[in-house]
Amino acid sequence: MTVVIGAGDATGGAIAKRFAREGFAVVATRRNAEALQPLRAEIEAEGGIMHALGCDARKEGAMVGLFEFIERDIGPVAVVVFNIGANVMFSITETTARVYQKVWEMAAFAGFLTGREAAKVMLPRSKGTIIFTGATASLRGASGFSAFASAKFALRALAQSMARELGPQGIHVAHSIIDGAIDTAFIKDNFPDKYASKAQAGILDPEHIAEQYWQIHRQAKDCWTHEFDLRPWQETF
Amino acid sequence: MTVVIGAGDATGGAIAKRFAREGFAVVATRRNAEALQPLRAEIEAEGGIMHALGCDARKEGAMVGLFEFIERDIGPVAVVVFNIGANVMFSITETTARVYQKVWEMAAFAGFLTGREAAKVMLPRSKGTIIFTGATASLRGASGFSAFASAKFALRALAQSMARELGPQGIHVAHSIIDGAIDTAFIKDNFPDKYASKAQAGILDPEHIAEQYWQIHRQAKDCWTHEFDLRPWQETF
Amino acid sequence: MTVVIGAGDATGGAIAKRFAREGFAVVATRRNAEALQPLRAEIEAEGGIMHALGCDARKEGAMVGLFEFIERDIGPVAVVVFNIGANVMFSITETTARVYQKVWEMAAFAGFLTGREAAKVMLPRSKGTIIFTGATASLRGASGFSAFASAKFALRALAQSMARELGPQGIHVAHSIIDGAIDTAFIKDNFPDKYASKAQAGILDPEHIAEQYWQIHRQAKDCWTHEFDLRPWQETF
Amino acid sequence: MTVVIGAGDATGGAIAKRFAREGFAVVATRRNAEALQPLRAEIEAEGGIMHALGCDARKEGAMVGLFEFIERDIGPVAVVVFNIGANVMFSITETTARVYQKVWEMAAFAGFLTGREAAKVMLPRSKGTIIFTGATASLRGASGFSAFASAKFALRALAQSMARELGPQGIHVAHSIIDGAIDTAFIKDNFPDKYASKAQAGILDPEHIAEQYWQIHRQAKDCWTHEFDLRPWQETF
Repeated sequence: MTVVIGAGDATGGAIAKRFAREGFAVVATRRNAEALQPLRAEIEAEGGIMHALGCDARKEGAMVGLFEFIERDIGPVAVVVFNIGANVMFSITETTARVYQKVWEMAAFAGFLTGREAAKVMLPRSKGTIIFTGATASLRGASGFSAFASAKFALRALAQSMARELGPQGIHVAHSIIDGAIDTAFIKDNFPDKYASKAQAGILDPEHIAEQYWQIHRQAKDCWTHEFDLRPWQETF
Repeated sequence: MTVVIGAGDATGGAIAKRFAREGFAVVATRRNAEALQPLRAEIEAEGGIMHALGCDARKEGAMVGLFEFIERDIGPVAVVVFNIGANVMFSITETTARVYQKVWEMAAFAGFLTGREAAKVMLPRSKGTIIFTGATASLRGASGFSAFASAKFALRALAQSMARELGPQGIHVAHSIIDGAIDTAFIKDNFPDKYASKAQAGILDPEHIAEQYWQIHRQAKDCWTHEFDLRPWQETF
Repeated sequence: MTVVIGAGDATGGAIAKRFAREGFAVVATRRNAEALQPLRAEIEAEGGIMHALGCDARKEGAMVGLFEFIERDIGPVAVVVFNIGANVMFSITETTARVYQKVWEMAAFAGFLTGREAAKVMLPRSKGTIIFTGATASLRGASGFSAFASAKFALRALAQSMARELGPQGIHVAHSIIDGAIDTAFIKDNFPDKYASKAQAGILDPEHIAEQYWQIHRQAKDCWTHEFDLRPWQETF
Repeated sequence: MTVVIGAGDATGGAIAKRFAREGFAVVATRRNAEALQPLRAEIEAEGGIMHALGCDARKEGAMVGLFEFIERDIGPVAVVVFNIGANVMFSITETTARVYQKVWEMAAFAGFLTGREAAKVMLPRSKGTIIFTGATASLRGASGFSAFASAKFALRALAQSMARELGPQGIHVAHSIIDGAIDTAFIKDNFPDKYASKAQAGILDPEHIAEQYWQIHRQAKDCWTHEFDLRPWQETF
């Protein structure tokens, strides 16, 4: 069973499809389960199995319930991908407390709940893969990114701490650094110039990201990656 | 005016004393102002001026009010030190949502409120120093430190983002990495073996930390440090 | 054409075999070409093609000649893997100038010559993959590792600089961090306790490392990894 | 006794003067001792003592002899500053083997010889300060900086390894990251626009760098900094 927390965007969807194609039953979640139906239709059309579950990943009760439900009624969790972002940009003085907290809840706290519940069900089996999706802001603060970088740094700390704690217990914890624009409606609508570089492979294809996540899961136990970056060829870094 | 947010521990107290000795009036805060009276007495005995203000640094209204009050009734803020920590150690599965959130509120969210309010009053003057106190866990996650490292990473991201945004506006933002045990009652009581190394300079003297913070503030505008580590000579790292 | 510079150890050999299996003709080099015959026999037994070339990678003339010869007489170079290490451990006062220099020549200077010659033949085609093999010491200095870490840090700087320069010209430059013992005769003979963990996947299998290098080469142009770590599940880091 | 290896530039000279002002006798070296006479005159005019010694820091024999001579004929070495840079910028394909090697010899190999000889004389006394001067390129490779970043990364690895080895033996090893242009004739002549920012504190004043080095040396043994950055307020990073 592969669980994708935050399957509402193109990346989460592509990851769900990629693992489904390998024979995994997939649980995909977002706040509004209804919105996951097109993804389910796609996966089923390819002969896969997907369960669409509505779940607010920032709510402890919801996340505890989610994993209990999956384990009891669907099947054992082998892979968990946390894929919720919350990119915002505000100068420090214009960053409201509400924004600072909401970004953290989505990008870090929800990641913590996901990671902890995943660990709980995986530890008795000494087996499992947990992948957290990071970003450029996971590595560097930047002007305008006080809230976003704080949350992404926190998620990276979580991934590192969990990897060091759970690796020796058989659980593979990995963290990606997605460094570039992804081929999404958001980029298309808001950064048309950037989007135009798609023809030259200038933005990340979600299916290619998904392929990397699959390769991470496939790694042999003696040869695990904890952190890897992904960026288009011409992206400066 | 030097403001020390989180002057409840030995480090915050030493910083308050150090800046008072240089002629700064000092505002020291902690949740319970009463508990700051011994520090005030010490500073006054040395001829300094200290205002003890009770303030829950995790409350937006309290922090906004604090900086307004200081600027209006005490004097312009030149230096702000954020010195609230929240070191806890739990395995990931034993980290409650409450702990994960509380640690973040103390170590990261309160830092954000401090930094933002400091920036607000400093920006019109294009001048000021803001120092955030970090720790080993600001740089590396570790087994048992999912909550603490998440919060300290977040604070570091804040400090980096603010430095990149505010440096070019004349405000010096710095971040320390305190890598070792500090000479406090907590270490004395809980880690007596570690504390015993005090005679060999094996634990950090708060006055020496304070000296470094003072030197950071003194740096010329063409020669600012953003990040520096502090550790005892025999500490492994 | 895949060129493996430093195919004398298990890792280099496994990489050569992995790429040969995908249909690449392989050039494998080490100082003594004769010693590469068993590797060639293995690859040919699997139906692959391997050219065994003797070459001292620390000699500029030899490396310039090597790439000229390959391009002229064998075929266009698509992939280059630099895989020469030089792990030594000496206290700083016992590190001779000769050791410091020799380790740099093998691990950094030879890497520079390899990378530069690879870039020269790849740039006109705006295409190619260059992978440098790093180690734990690429990220952290440590007591006893002044020489080794200096050389490995230098190689990482080369990989980073080349990635930033050559990525936007179509060439994929990647750097691995091999963090753990590899299943080699050296580990077997010198660290028998470590080697005993092989049964529990406690040491890296060269074939698994090779698989990751292959996956790096396969990455789509919009989704390149520059740096990734590889370690056994129970390895502390 | 303070020894400044590479006192030929403004920074080395300012460091020599700063320590002389504190009562240290200073040994300043560069390849051509004659060129150090103006610095000596300045220091003597302020009542200080400086020995100008010609020494090619890339030659093992010269460096061994230098430290032996100082210890025997001048006095015990308390502080050593390594301050030789070698900033060059070439695309990878235009980086000659000679350049790659020369830059390493100056910035890394000479640093190794300096650090090792300093360690040799300091270890029996369990006391001393060794400071290595780094740069932006110590932390990040960049297009055009394959040679320079390789050498500066290597020097940083040396500083880290030595700090971890020698700290617990009483010797303080520190590494600076100078991130910006320094007020030198070189910048004045080659980057006049940059130099024009001097009036706005846009370039580093060597005396301010020297002040920071002095503060590093003054740190108490329980509170040592290993790494610190220095940059002008408006410098992007």
